[in-house]
Amino acid sequence: MQKIEMLYEGKAKRIYKTEQSDLYISEFKDDATAFNGAKKGTIENKGVVNTKISARLFELLEKNGIPTHFVKLLSENEMLVKKVTIIPIEVVIRNIVAGSMAKNLGLKEGLPLAYPVLDLYYKDDSLNDPMITEYHVKALNYASDADMNTIKVMSLKINDILKGFFKSCGIDLVDFKLEFGKTVDGNVVLADEISPDTCRFWDSQTGEKLDKDRFRRDLGNVEGSYQEMLRRVTNY
Amino acid sequence: MQKIEMLYEGKAKRIYKTEQSDLYISEFKDDATAFNGAKKGTIENKGVVNTKISARLFELLEKNGIPTHFVKLLSENEMLVKKVTIIPIEVVIRNIVAGSMAKNLGLKEGLPLAYPVLDLYYKDDSLNDPMITEYHVKALNYASDADMNTIKVMSLKINDILKGFFKSCGIDLVDFKLEFGKTVDGNVVLADEISPDTCRFWDSQTGEKLDKDRFRRDLGNVEGSYQEMLRRVTNY
Repeated sequence: MQKIEMLYEGKAKRIYKTEQSDLYISEFKDDATAFNGAKKGTIENKGVVNTKISARLFELLEKNGIPTHFVKLLSENEMLVKKVTIIPIEVVIRNIVAGSMAKNLGLKEGLPLAYPVLDLYYKDDSLNDPMITEYHVKALNYASDADMNTIKVMSLKINDILKGFFKSCGIDLVDFKLEFGKTVDGNVVLADEISPDTCRFWDSQTGEKLDKDRFRRDLGNVEGSYQEMLRRVTNY
Repeated sequence: MQKIEMLYEGKAKRIYKTEQSDLYISEFKDDATAFNGAKKGTIENKGVVNTKISARLFELLEKNGIPTHFVKLLSENEMLVKKVTIIPIEVVIRNIVAGSMAKNLGLKEGLPLAYPVLDLYYKDDSLNDPMITEYHVKALNYASDADMNTIKVMSLKINDILKGFFKSCGIDLVDFKLEFGKTVDGNVVLADEISPDTCRFWDSQTGEKLDKDRFRRDLGNVEGSYQEMLRRVTNY
């Protein structure tokens, strides 16, 4: 499978057309950004680490009945994926209070939530990805009722699967972002990536952060933490 | 019924104990604030206008099966209300895009919504009343599942009743904020006020704003617009 034309370059990935019309190549970059691009940098080997972690997690989810865009690995930082149209809704599932939730609601980071919180954000960098609800999705037709319901049910199921998996790796899955796409045959599948860029991972014993917060908050040992997550996920 | 002790002074009202333990007096002030208190001023006769409009609307809602805290008018700017504990959730129902929704989602003010949007905000001035969802309410126990459901069902029914009523007054009900309280016997009732301070009212013919946006945005004729709303609501 060959890259024919770059379709899109995002903050962390490039997407290419292939010779097969329903398949794309997703290439992971080492570029790191935070705060909607306001902070920029590079995390050495991030592309490789995130490709491998994402591939492992997409396979795990597929095995547990979650359809994803993942087809197969092509190289250390490239995966073959199904062509999808991204639904412009970011889903964030939270199990423990952290980040914007702690700040906005005046809560202490680390507070465990009695029930998972499912937050929705409208995917639009120019608007800073504003928080929305299912009412906005319906009234403004960001997705159909059926697709929104699929996304919600799938997201909560993904949380159950991943929480258990990461627990067995000695990691608390604090929160994570998901994106979904529609395939050419109209199915909603999990897309994008699942990696230390898009999740908060805390060591279950020490509470140490092993995710992009090390970059966002200048905590040091950024590369080492990404490598540690790769080790934990692939040794499972 | 007499004021015995001031319990609370808010931005637009004072609440007093009375000689009867389950009744309070709510006194409406002329003080006007906007942007969470950052802008301050006075709107002449606002207390009287908002008392009269709120009383009229509470009566209308009660007649249509919505329980409210309203008991009766005591004077031009005082009403006798049931003692309630305010549930710390502000409900905003939107029929037409305006205000923060237009700004946050990059939409034009005046866009009609195909379905009403029900937004929730956590009532906390020090946090700037952050937007929340039913997931936050459940996970952080801001209200019980049963109370949250009552609030939601009641809010949408209130919207139906008020939209129709205001239409007959030549007014488009753009959006409005509601607060709910629990009475001493544990019932959820509509509380606070419904007035040009808490609603967006646009003249159905001319589109002229007849609400607090005239104060927020320095549009002039603030007092005249409040008086006009009182005239429309009481001539019904």
